[in-house]
Amino acid sequence: MPPIDAVLTNALLPDGRRADIALAQGRIAALADAGGTTSAPTLDLQNALVLPGLVDGHLHLDKTLIGLPWMGHAAEPNRMSRIETDKKILPHLPLKTAERAANLIRLCAAQGSAHLRTHVDIDLEGKLSKLEGVLEARDACRDYATVQIVAFPQSGVMRRPGTLDLLDQAVRAGADLVGGIDPLEIDRDPKGQLDGIFKIAERHGVGLDIHLHEPGAMGLFNVQEICLRTRAAGLNGKVTISHGFCLGDLAESKQRETADLMAKAGVMLVTHGAAGLNLPPIALLRDMGVTVFAGNDDIRDTWSPYGNADMLERAALIGWRADFRRDDQVMIAWDLATASGARALGIPDYGLAVGAAANFVTLCATCIPEAVAAHPPRHLVFHRGKVVAAHGHALDRPADPAAYAKRN
Amino acid sequence: MPPIDAVLTNALLPDGRRADIALAQGRIAALADAGGTTSAPTLDLQNALVLPGLVDGHLHLDKTLIGLPWMGHAAEPNRMSRIETDKKILPHLPLKTAERAANLIRLCAAQGSAHLRTHVDIDLEGKLSKLEGVLEARDACRDYATVQIVAFPQSGVMRRPGTLDLLDQAVRAGADLVGGIDPLEIDRDPKGQLDGIFKIAERHGVGLDIHLHEPGAMGLFNVQEICLRTRAAGLNGKVTISHGFCLGDLAESKQRETADLMAKAGVMLVTHGAAGLNLPPIALLRDMGVTVFAGNDDIRDTWSPYGNADMLERAALIGWRADFRRDDQVMIAWDLATASGARALGIPDYGLAVGAAANFVTLCATCIPEAVAAHPPRHLVFHRGKVVAAHGHALDRPADPAAYAKRN
Repeated sequence: MPPIDAVLTNALLPDGRRADIALAQGRIAALADAGGTTSAPTLDLQNALVLPGLVDGHLHLDKTLIGLPWMGHAAEPNRMSRIETDKKILPHLPLKTAERAANLIRLCAAQGSAHLRTHVDIDLEGKLSKLEGVLEARDACRDYATVQIVAFPQSGVMRRPGTLDLLDQAVRAGADLVGGIDPLEIDRDPKGQLDGIFKIAERHGVGLDIHLHEPGAMGLFNVQEICLRTRAAGLNGKVTISHGFCLGDLAESKQRETADLMAKAGVMLVTHGAAGLNLPPIALLRDMGVTVFAGNDDIRDTWSPYGNADMLERAALIGWRADFRRDDQVMIAWDLATASGARALGIPDYGLAVGAAANFVTLCATCIPEAVAAHPPRHLVFHRGKVVAAHGHALDRPADPAAYAKRN
Repeated sequence: MPPIDAVLTNALLPDGRRADIALAQGRIAALADAGGTTSAPTLDLQNALVLPGLVDGHLHLDKTLIGLPWMGHAAEPNRMSRIETDKKILPHLPLKTAERAANLIRLCAAQGSAHLRTHVDIDLEGKLSKLEGVLEARDACRDYATVQIVAFPQSGVMRRPGTLDLLDQAVRAGADLVGGIDPLEIDRDPKGQLDGIFKIAERHGVGLDIHLHEPGAMGLFNVQEICLRTRAAGLNGKVTISHGFCLGDLAESKQRETADLMAKAGVMLVTHGAAGLNLPPIALLRDMGVTVFAGNDDIRDTWSPYGNADMLERAALIGWRADFRRDDQVMIAWDLATASGARALGIPDYGLAVGAAANFVTLCATCIPEAVAAHPPRHLVFHRGKVVAAHGHALDRPADPAAYAKRN
């Protein structure tokens, strides 16, 4: 057994136990009853609740304005205008993609998120430049959170010839998944787009995460097409539909039929709560075996002024929209932002258990439903056994727990 | 001019000016350019943004569980079960109504709310007991926030003979407004309920605030009936519809027609963002002249586990649901939680201006849209010129600004 690097004393675990958490080589080496004597350096958690690091399964690091002076939203109220406004604004900001993305990764970490999946625009104008910026930010912030990157054809695929090639290049340059977007509404060629992006995914052995804003029957058509191709390609468990607002529009019998299709194909859904649209039927999808997880989506960016990177607030918002009131229902909202997200992102060694990576967040609450419902301010955030944020702010550099304890 | 009691230096005002705020007798005596010399005791705001006290126009002080250990939600997923569960749970809690209500008033104050409108259950079982508890809490917390009380027939009016009499008694005992609830769905006698509660309001010269959860055409019927009676009774500007979910269900032409009816009658709407239901058309209602304001509704209570009393988070949530992205749109969400709420509650001397009551909150942001979108933690909260909360917690007793500055 490796030597213990530090012991976090007086932790309140989600199951109600008081415990000391021993850390070794960035992992949880032991979860013992509180009050055991130890010769390792300690940090007193003062009975704060300890929760596993949160998972933000859908955001856009390349579009954020975090770190810049406030700017009013500039796009017209439709998706195409936002796509075009991005191209006008983003290249001319005083902070580069890498700087803005790093600011947002650190804000996510300060709110307790340990694992992120970001979409990054790949288009004819910017080519791979945003991907390069986000790769740089991911590297600069590798001690704060893990970042999974989707090569995202925000401007469309078939309507912009050359995009498939760029997506292929993006995966070769380091993107972890291939993206897609509204094959009917934006591309008007679902067969072309879906065949094209699935071919890239198969070629490189990576997963897919496809934005689907299309409503009702139009969106349903593409859910069906995505499920068909996922089964044919043997990509069970590696394909996500982002948003899937259409699922909220269907009659319950059709929701069941579609959930069954998704479950059998291993196609997952990520949601941010659907804003003004109909919320997909989260509990029904889960009951039918579909993995559903959560993401913040826009966090103060060119698409929306809202967002503070807090995945507990996001879980509360989703739970409130979904009418999750009982503790077992609030725990569904919690699961979307933690274990289901980790499973969807393929995070190994996740959770608050001996042997797992020492990624967690502490706050003032007595149980998980309370932590979700009130989403109180974060105290400390640990990533791979180091303190990376305190009281809402990322530290300039990760600190050994005992050294942090001495300084504070 | 009364002598200056204290000067708050280095304030950032919403219009971008840096200013010193002079306080006298609980009011704003001067808003001067920063850096003026003063002989009065000072408190340095360190360039925090100063916002007028927030207005929570709809909550339920008598149902909250704030201050108690966490309890899982116990009601079945329908309104009648929640009504009955209240009667089973609330009388047997280890904290009395007055204690729980005071805990919540202080939490609201800690989040920056200066003015509250609460509904208080009046029914055959509890009679006026909850009102008495909330009146006690209002008095105990009178230095933290103002509280307006609606005598609320949660269990129905006509289906529970004797309730009208209790509502009348409640107004005589100190309730500020008469409430109502779903005259069709719960009472199945709209004429009986509405005639009855309007008669009480007219008798005592008070306003009304009526819960309307009923959907579509059913709810619309009661909106029309309420508008008719408001005009007949000359209660323009004194009647509120709470929730009015039906307004979100109507076709736009019908929404316009109904908004016009409400505007002409001076009937207002308060919303909490409609959770899983259709959001009333906030911008359309305002454009047509209807006063719309906002409230948190449930804050960790027997009806919902969610809620942390933050009206800036509530404004962000409403703005997100309403697709308010541009700054001028985010300012609508802000207005619901401030000036429109103050107008609806009839708060005199509201706002950040010389002569107004010195009720405000400070936080780290550069402008109002940023404060709404990110709803960052509150620094200090002032009520009638005294510091009543700091860093998310109400002080045990209000402190003179200079004395507070010296201690911290």
